[in-house]
Amino acid sequence: MDRIDPWGSNAIEDYERLFNQFGIQPFSELIDILDEPNHLMRRSVIFGHRDFDKFWEAYKNGENVAVITGLMPSGKMHFGHKMVVDELLWFQERNIPVTISIASIEAYAVRELSQEAVKNFGIDEYLINYIALGLKPSNCEVYFQEERKSVISLAPLFSRRITFNELKAIYGELSPAKIVSALTQVADILHIQLEKYGGPKYVNVPVGADQDPHIRLTRDVASRYFSEYGFISPTATYHRFLLGLGGGKMSSSVPTSYIALTDALESAKSKLMNSFTGGRDTKKEQQELGGRPEICPVAELMRIHLIKDDDKFLKLYEQCKSGELICGDCKKIAWSYLQKFLEEHQKKREKARDNIDKYLVRD
Amino acid sequence: MDRIDPWGSNAIEDYERLFNQFGIQPFSELIDILDEPNHLMRRSVIFGHRDFDKFWEAYKNGENVAVITGLMPSGKMHFGHKMVVDELLWFQERNIPVTISIASIEAYAVRELSQEAVKNFGIDEYLINYIALGLKPSNCEVYFQEERKSVISLAPLFSRRITFNELKAIYGELSPAKIVSALTQVADILHIQLEKYGGPKYVNVPVGADQDPHIRLTRDVASRYFSEYGFISPTATYHRFLLGLGGGKMSSSVPTSYIALTDALESAKSKLMNSFTGGRDTKKEQQELGGRPEICPVAELMRIHLIKDDDKFLKLYEQCKSGELICGDCKKIAWSYLQKFLEEHQKKREKARDNIDKYLVRD
Repeated sequence: MDRIDPWGSNAIEDYERLFNQFGIQPFSELIDILDEPNHLMRRSVIFGHRDFDKFWEAYKNGENVAVITGLMPSGKMHFGHKMVVDELLWFQERNIPVTISIASIEAYAVRELSQEAVKNFGIDEYLINYIALGLKPSNCEVYFQEERKSVISLAPLFSRRITFNELKAIYGELSPAKIVSALTQVADILHIQLEKYGGPKYVNVPVGADQDPHIRLTRDVASRYFSEYGFISPTATYHRFLLGLGGGKMSSSVPTSYIALTDALESAKSKLMNSFTGGRDTKKEQQELGGRPEICPVAELMRIHLIKDDDKFLKLYEQCKSGELICGDCKKIAWSYLQKFLEEHQKKREKARDNIDKYLVRD
Repeated sequence: MDRIDPWGSNAIEDYERLFNQFGIQPFSELIDILDEPNHLMRRSVIFGHRDFDKFWEAYKNGENVAVITGLMPSGKMHFGHKMVVDELLWFQERNIPVTISIASIEAYAVRELSQEAVKNFGIDEYLINYIALGLKPSNCEVYFQEERKSVISLAPLFSRRITFNELKAIYGELSPAKIVSALTQVADILHIQLEKYGGPKYVNVPVGADQDPHIRLTRDVASRYFSEYGFISPTATYHRFLLGLGGGKMSSSVPTSYIALTDALESAKSKLMNSFTGGRDTKKEQQELGGRPEICPVAELMRIHLIKDDDKFLKLYEQCKSGELICGDCKKIAWSYLQKFLEEHQKKREKARDNIDKYLVRD
């Protein structure tokens, strides 16, 4: 039998192997120094970091710190996008200012959406979902990239000390649009260290694992512009991807792979019921060998998003592993959680819509 | 004897030959339709255009039109930079709004000057000289690129429909900084057609001949974004380079090639007296064959900048051609004009300094 951690998955070990090569540190080492780590931290969904210990020490010493992250307004917001919001809420509970960049320049220039579509996705899909998930307006700013003067004025200046080769390492094949997008993302992360935003400070960037090349570039740029701006290299926390309902990565470009936070209940139920699972080929086999929750997107949806109570999840996990719980029944349980979540969330969205101006900043 | 036009030079014919290949139209064809063309127009210093007839027609029909140009704040402003100002004044006399972009992003990112140096060159060298030369504050805006939100928000969006190959045609070897600079220059030219600035209109761009690749790119970009912004392809007027005092191009990077508008009198006199001329090898030869004003930077300085009176210049020109006037004496005449110009200009600069806030816009 595989080595199994009920809170991890085989995928995480792959991440850790992969990222150790690039100097990402395991997040598990920090669990003990944090105040009330959230379920994503406890359950190794947030699996790695860069210098987050320094950010945390600065915070505990009463220094100004801040958090910034970005979102890509190019499609539906699904559960794979929700982890970063849960992480932001944890920072907000600690009164740490949160800034969110809507990557509208990249969505327009690289993904080639219309400007109207970008605005709609940014607000209707992302911002309203973030608010409905609990994002607080206090100490929180959300902006579209082209509306943030500090960002768009800083990005071109950074072009001076960035090379093609560095950008190729992020994007592979380059284009003017990709270069501009990368520069803008670096400026997103660093601009809140400008004097206008209180000057240099530790800034943590919660991101998906695939964003590490941007983080590395930004940390390099920060040091190259230290003499001009006094930038402190930003820290980062990395969360893993969510398994898609088909077994691969949950991805906006594959509608059957995800459940969107705005999916109609019937559609969500249908996707869930048709999901790939960690079940065996036959019922007999499953009863003998047990299920494989570690590769099961349904188990993962519950572990990461739907069941915050450790004991409740552990009970299901054991029933699955022992072969006692078969997939069909398990999906019904998952649906009961999912249905409740979606119903409540979609109700909260209606109220959230009235509050977007408390978050959106044009400056 | 060469075919000689007292107002032209051999160099202009080269320009015309060169640019006809790229579709630049001869400016001389328009002279008759213009109201009181200025000396640069009459004397073929402004030698070419793209669609300026359309701009002029729109202006004569009472449509809103505008003029925009840019300057590179990376060194001293010399007489080679003065032609564009004389052209701007002509547009101002016709109540056509003038906008001037200080290419601070390019100066910082490509030319690698400090931000402080860029600000100093932009204001102390260029803006103050422009004002002293007669630029009026009415209907005139001058901005540093990174302070113009409309420009820096538009530039990254243009990356969507611009390719590497187009940019290579302008810059040869590319870098992220050059790409960003080119995009920003396109945004400079097009942003005054945004609704904020009164919407689409004919915009003329007075530039040196070397800037034509930017103009062509901008015209292409304008048409690609027509459906989103309704841009009208900008028109352009081209002036030739001034001959440097050493015989080549007048260039900021070769201090002995230029006389700066802020040069101390002694220094300016010394540069002028040591200038290359169109004189012959011996006095005897010159008396027999006559001088060559068409390749003489001293003659050109008088023709383009120092002598506005056609008759006065023509008299000197004839004396030179006939061998009657030798270079040493001619330089003394040139110096009397130059000295007067510099003394008056430098006095005007003192007053100009108090008025920069009437021009500089941060928005």
